[in-house]
Amino acid sequence: MTELSARPRRPGPTVRTRVTELGPEGQRHREDRLATEEPLEIRLTWPGSAPQRVWVTMRTPGHDFELAAGFCCHEGMAAPSSIRGIAYCTDVDLSPEQEFNVVTVTLTGPTDIAHRHTGMSAGSSACGVCGKDSVTAVLDTARTSGDTARWTGPLPSPDVVRRLPEALREGQAVFGRTGGVHAAGLFTAEGEALVIREDVGRHNAVDKVTGARVLAGASPAEACLVVSGRAGFELVQKAVAAGVGCLVAVGAPTSLAVSLAREAGLGLYGFTRAERTVRYAEGG
Amino acid sequence: MTELSARPRRPGPTVRTRVTELGPEGQRHREDRLATEEPLEIRLTWPGSAPQRVWVTMRTPGHDFELAAGFCCHEGMAAPSSIRGIAYCTDVDLSPEQEFNVVTVTLTGPTDIAHRHTGMSAGSSACGVCGKDSVTAVLDTARTSGDTARWTGPLPSPDVVRRLPEALREGQAVFGRTGGVHAAGLFTAEGEALVIREDVGRHNAVDKVTGARVLAGASPAEACLVVSGRAGFELVQKAVAAGVGCLVAVGAPTSLAVSLAREAGLGLYGFTRAERTVRYAEGG
Repeated sequence: MTELSARPRRPGPTVRTRVTELGPEGQRHREDRLATEEPLEIRLTWPGSAPQRVWVTMRTPGHDFELAAGFCCHEGMAAPSSIRGIAYCTDVDLSPEQEFNVVTVTLTGPTDIAHRHTGMSAGSSACGVCGKDSVTAVLDTARTSGDTARWTGPLPSPDVVRRLPEALREGQAVFGRTGGVHAAGLFTAEGEALVIREDVGRHNAVDKVTGARVLAGASPAEACLVVSGRAGFELVQKAVAAGVGCLVAVGAPTSLAVSLAREAGLGLYGFTRAERTVRYAEGG
Repeated sequence: MTELSARPRRPGPTVRTRVTELGPEGQRHREDRLATEEPLEIRLTWPGSAPQRVWVTMRTPGHDFELAAGFCCHEGMAAPSSIRGIAYCTDVDLSPEQEFNVVTVTLTGPTDIAHRHTGMSAGSSACGVCGKDSVTAVLDTARTSGDTARWTGPLPSPDVVRRLPEALREGQAVFGRTGGVHAAGLFTAEGEALVIREDVGRHNAVDKVTGARVLAGASPAEACLVVSGRAGFELVQKAVAAGVGCLVAVGAPTSLAVSLAREAGLGLYGFTRAERTVRYAEGG
């Protein structure tokens, strides 16, 4: 714990550290930049209810309110119009290091906070578990999550799809400096970037993108969500909940991701490069 | 939901599906293989206690008992010697699809199942949250997790470290077929592979490796844990809990991963290739 602990009170997206590079010709000491990773606790409250913790995620600091808003919308805990405010927690018992690691989302009214199907902790009494049940449950969440619209406009052509990863990369600020973060971006059917966010956690990057749209008063239901990594079940789940038209991944999709995309009518592309892309679900 | 839902009752590591490849020259229909992703619910029980759910993870089926054993040991819920048995759940209310998605770990005696610091669900009353607290908590878990020894033997030389990703790749069976899974492996200081496991979730792959050792009656505290992706806080946390000497990642580490490795005396390498590797923490 040397220079790493000397971070500013409000941590930035990267920190500097000394490292040793080792090759066949020997070793070289140099400075390196690391993607910052810190825990973020998300709490929910509404009039007449004390704040309750709903999630703790390891994330890259920055756009924390967006992350919280997007997470709550993706999980069916909040509709975009039900978010009244988001603030860093000011509990007197928080240590200075915690000051920017706890956010409270204030809703206009009560919500069901027992929605998540994975990562449930001890003693949880939430849903049963099987692929079919999870798929059904998330579809239900997506279909009933209040005022999140579903994209019904045009989808990107394959030529546009193949250009999207490069467009995403161009919008990444932290990646070039650390090589350690994922990115997600919302794009129009013509390939224009609307919002791009980065995070050490790929789920967080997607939450931030949706949250950014929601907090700006815009719909997260756009033509195309692009992610720098693979497309697993949980990313497809978020894409369906946000109402986007298609999900474009640079990496591979999983079996359950493809199942859910096909059932939900979400377009799904994987292994996307400038030269080619692979379509796993048509969408629409 | 076409051929994807026609999976055998006990799902394998990959499934086949029809896809459309799209390039500048047009489209081509072909068959593709996807990494299987299914939920796994882990339950814990001991004499006199009804089984309680402790976690649900999206995983690649196979080596499920190892995953459950490794997870419980990494989280400080079980010491290797306290695991009396692991079985698929046979509840009469489980549907056929769920039959291989729920495992119950039987311990010799009571344990504290409220250990996890991330992913805590609604209403959890577990730990507070901040980088420092999490670091302290996991160190405490690692130091007090019963009979898991800490590796005190020799560490691999930089020349061995640089060869490890290729050795890991050679041991991967599923990756070559899908491009969609992560791998983790336990290696000796001389670079000999002891056990290699794959999963769509990189945390699961590490759990499986430790679980394989534990269920074989061997110590997970070996010289070197190798992972095919990045090294975030939670992977370093597992490496510390397992007692390995160093963690070698193909990808980038995060700030909190480096902090924890330095504090815990874990060697940490990132961006590891045949030509070079970067050492972030010395270990020992």
